[in-house]
Amino acid sequence: MEYNRKNVPEAVIRRLPRYHRYLGECLKNGIKRISSLELSKRMQVTASQIRQDLNCFAQFGQQGYGYNVENLYMEINRILNLTETQRIIIMGAGHLGSALANYPNMKTRGFVVKAMFDIDPKKIGTRVADVPVYDVAALDEWMKTEGADIAVLCIPKETVGEVAQHLVDLGIRGLWNFSYADLKVEPAVPIQNMHLIDHVMMLSYQMKEAEL
Amino acid sequence: MEYNRKNVPEAVIRRLPRYHRYLGECLKNGIKRISSLELSKRMQVTASQIRQDLNCFAQFGQQGYGYNVENLYMEINRILNLTETQRIIIMGAGHLGSALANYPNMKTRGFVVKAMFDIDPKKIGTRVADVPVYDVAALDEWMKTEGADIAVLCIPKETVGEVAQHLVDLGIRGLWNFSYADLKVEPAVPIQNMHLIDHVMMLSYQMKEAEL
Repeated sequence: MEYNRKNVPEAVIRRLPRYHRYLGECLKNGIKRISSLELSKRMQVTASQIRQDLNCFAQFGQQGYGYNVENLYMEINRILNLTETQRIIIMGAGHLGSALANYPNMKTRGFVVKAMFDIDPKKIGTRVADVPVYDVAALDEWMKTEGADIAVLCIPKETVGEVAQHLVDLGIRGLWNFSYADLKVEPAVPIQNMHLIDHVMMLSYQMKEAEL
Repeated sequence: MEYNRKNVPEAVIRRLPRYHRYLGECLKNGIKRISSLELSKRMQVTASQIRQDLNCFAQFGQQGYGYNVENLYMEINRILNLTETQRIIIMGAGHLGSALANYPNMKTRGFVVKAMFDIDPKKIGTRVADVPVYDVAALDEWMKTEGADIAVLCIPKETVGEVAQHLVDLGIRGLWNFSYADLKVEPAVPIQNMHLIDHVMMLSYQMKEAEL
């Protein structure tokens, strides 16, 4: 199936992983088809929003029948490009990097952590969740011989800009940034910024709202 | 200043922490005033979007003058309720919980981690980033005598629903959930779900886009 993927609104893209999660749960529970109304109840989004979202990609579902759960799940899998294995490296083997190496949901979705890099001699040579921790000095050689698609950045913000640019020079295709800095690299590659503090600030806002 | 805070779109709320970050940087760099055009360049949002966003709360800025950086920063501080200290507890002293206890950006914004709770006898009685780790059996008593505003959930998804409800029963006012489950509690309190895997899925989508 060919998709018209141009200009898909960011809000739609943000909902795709949720569709993926809910449909995955339906599959696990043996549900074979689902109405957009039923799906909308689970997702707490209107049924017409769901139809609009999915129509950004292709015509899914059938009037009066609803969605075939497995088909829709597989298509969203394809849209999110989860059918291919992505090779991940984690820069920084501190608490956060280690938490991500241990994160069970990565591997099951094709995101395989291949190596971690650090500058701390105490960490270099160890393994975290069976992933080897290498000296960052070995990064260039490793990228040449092994290669990676995505680098996860769990390093201080003072050095993250330089490291990110270096990774792009070495051929990395996407960055998942946990440092509190907004990165710019040349040539541009997709970047997901995880500014954790932003989310607790939003929570703070919502708590104040709830009070008023 | 009184705000009309009703029906502020989620996308606007999502941008508030970014305004906070950029204006904070301006302040640090000694910038006293900024035009909406200048701010929009830094934020990569249109100037009219910025004006619209801020108008959700009050009339900021002055035609031809732009924004007074300090005033605007302080107002966004107030809107996000960062002027009050929030007491945080972290459920789960694993890698992720420990990473958050060590996260330097929390304290500087008034989010003070007071205690961690775990079931692992090896962790109970230790300290992480100077935060004491208690037995989860001591939670009820601790909430009664010390209290907390926000609980960060870094525990397995199998138990997170039950723990979340118990925390709400004990008077917690907001939940920051890192478990891969969508929580429902009664009575409802604000919840920020951090489904980390969703973000790497979105990155995967964007990388495919960039290729096409």
